Amino acid sequence: MAGGVGSRFWPMSRSVHPKQFIDVLGIGKSLLQQTYERYANHICPPENILVVTHASYKDLVKKQLPNIPDENIICEPLRKNTAPCVAYASYKIAKKDPKAMVVVAPSDHLILKNTTFEKAIKACFEKAASEDCLLTIGIRPMRPDTGYGYIQYNESSAKEKDKRIKKVKTFTEKPDLEMAKFFLQSGDFLWNSGIFVWSIASIIKAMEKYMPEEAALFRDGIDSYNTPKEQQYIEKVYEQCKNISIDYGVMEKADNVYVRSSAIGWSDLGTWGSLYQHMEKDKDMNAVVGKNVMLYQSKGCIVHVPKNKLVVMEGLEDYIVVESEDILLICKKQDEQQIRNFVNEVKARKGEKFV
Amino acid sequence: MAGGVGSRFWPMSRSVHPKQFIDVLGIGKSLLQQTYERYANHICPPENILVVTHASYKDLVKKQLPNIPDENIICEPLRKNTAPCVAYASYKIAKKDPKAMVVVAPSDHLILKNTTFEKAIKACFEKAASEDCLLTIGIRPMRPDTGYGYIQYNESSAKEKDKRIKKVKTFTEKPDLEMAKFFLQSGDFLWNSGIFVWSIASIIKAMEKYMPEEAALFRDGIDSYNTPKEQQYIEKVYEQCKNISIDYGVMEKADNVYVRSSAIGWSDLGTWGSLYQHMEKDKDMNAVVGKNVMLYQSKGCIVHVPKNKLVVMEGLEDYIVVESEDILLICKKQDEQQIRNFVNEVKARKGEKFV
Repeated sequence: MAGGVGSRFWPMSRSVHPKQFIDVLGIGKSLLQQTYERYANHICPPENILVVTHASYKDLVKKQLPNIPDENIICEPLRKNTAPCVAYASYKIAKKDPKAMVVVAPSDHLILKNTTFEKAIKACFEKAASEDCLLTIGIRPMRPDTGYGYIQYNESSAKEKDKRIKKVKTFTEKPDLEMAKFFLQSGDFLWNSGIFVWSIASIIKAMEKYMPEEAALFRDGIDSYNTPKEQQYIEKVYEQCKNISIDYGVMEKADNVYVRSSAIGWSDLGTWGSLYQHMEKDKDMNAVVGKNVMLYQSKGCIVHVPKNKLVVMEGLEDYIVVESEDILLICKKQDEQQIRNFVNEVKARKGEKFV
Repeated sequence: MAGGVGSRFWPMSRSVHPKQFIDVLGIGKSLLQQTYERYANHICPPENILVVTHASYKDLVKKQLPNIPDENIICEPLRKNTAPCVAYASYKIAKKDPKAMVVVAPSDHLILKNTTFEKAIKACFEKAASEDCLLTIGIRPMRPDTGYGYIQYNESSAKEKDKRIKKVKTFTEKPDLEMAKFFLQSGDFLWNSGIFVWSIASIIKAMEKYMPEEAALFRDGIDSYNTPKEQQYIEKVYEQCKNISIDYGVMEKADNVYVRSSAIGWSDLGTWGSLYQHMEKDKDMNAVVGKNVMLYQSKGCIVHVPKNKLVVMEGLEDYIVVESEDILLICKKQDEQQIRNFVNEVKARKGEKFV
């Protein structure tokens, strides 16, 4: 899934080139490229990787993943959250191979431990192949974050082959701080990473049961998929379908959901703070992406500027300095939550072209 | 005179477009354009204005002063300070009109009181036309600045028609702080504005007396001036002539020098501090040049960015934020003297193209 707009990282991430297409950590690869490699190297044959994105990003995907065949880039005409995205891709896959096993993953997250990750995905595949169930990768919470979904689980059953796979009891989206603290202390909650594993048969069955109207819209197009009529059909369907997440549409309702607790070095890189944590730092704890950045008497800053930009910075402590094409943002790190307001004000005063 | 490189205002001012060509105050006109208008409007016919500049700025001058004839742009092949500049222009003028009266002026200063300025120049013209003398415009010092030249004067003689015109006793270039404080307190010192008035006969006479070798170099070319042979001659002469200022070469040595104390609202805009003082400020005392600058919780900053750049700044107090093409500088206002070191380090590490 590579269709989001990533407005939290404005102006680094903008609607014309969102976060998943950016080398946010300055390591030479965008998050999408890292995600592709994570799967292509060890989990599935590269030709089986489908990228679902917004139609406007098709060229960006082709540019960043030049080896991917055109027909593997699935373009959504409108942004309708993850349920339509999963439904569309699932029926397309089912038409080709009704026995397919599927991983659904965001393309703008960080996973540091690739070997552990592969092990986790393979264990989930094994489970999903052997019974009708839906799996998600769960992350042990490290702080009472109110921005994530929390999954409460039952202890692993004795007959479970992989003891890290546990039956899901409840899903709770974005709890308040008090509840998040309670979840963290209780010890039987995991963060929902948004990485799902299932057989194509199980997810289609679940969608048809828990979100039957939306499922029907996509099922009815099965004759047109992978033919020249597909685009026209999909444009019509996206106009009609609801904007809902697969979590809300299926996962929270289904009773055959499992979570695999996995220490994969995961971060959704959802805040400048989490990005900073994963960036390389200089001796003054500055995290710099950019080839020509000269810092003096500066500490704890995040600097993200284009390669060709020369930046001289003096006397800044704990600031975010980001330049992207025609936009410059300078903001205290501790005030990063204000960026959303800045973007709204920019949009209101200067127009869409700057967001 | 419009040939300087203005490195103190890097990166706003750079060797490819120095300070005199920049609208530093954000009022819609560069300092050169303001200087041109100051003279063209009331002091002399526009066709009598000569711009002496470095050869590499010829196109910039033509662009900014489209009405000026090509032959009025005098190009120096090398930078050799003000004495060669004055000598070259003076002999060229003398060939055309040996009776000419001349004002020599920098093009990167601010003069706020144009009416007072015109009065001052006209009083100097009158004096310079009536006797063999050299005049400079003096400014009442406002602080013990160690960056200026100081002029000590004798009280105005009884026969002086304009009581503001006084005989010069001594010149002191860039005194130390203690001496500058003494000059300020004593009350009989003025800052040298670098604006000179004289007849072409008097300056040539003085140059031939006090810097005879340099004067001879330029005098010997008189046959080639205003002919196709001029450029070749001048290139040879600039290779040979010394790098000296007209102050050092003539003014400090001559015994017929006068200063006219004039309250013309002068500033050489030589530091960010002096620039800030003359810029329009918002309610939080931010001085902004740029069309798309949005400030939050920011005070006392100087922001100078291109028109098309959107800047969002939060939580900065007393900073200089300057962007110019491929360079961004962020620096505490109080540390502006460090900018010179930054420029040197940029030059050493990244090469000439960034300075």
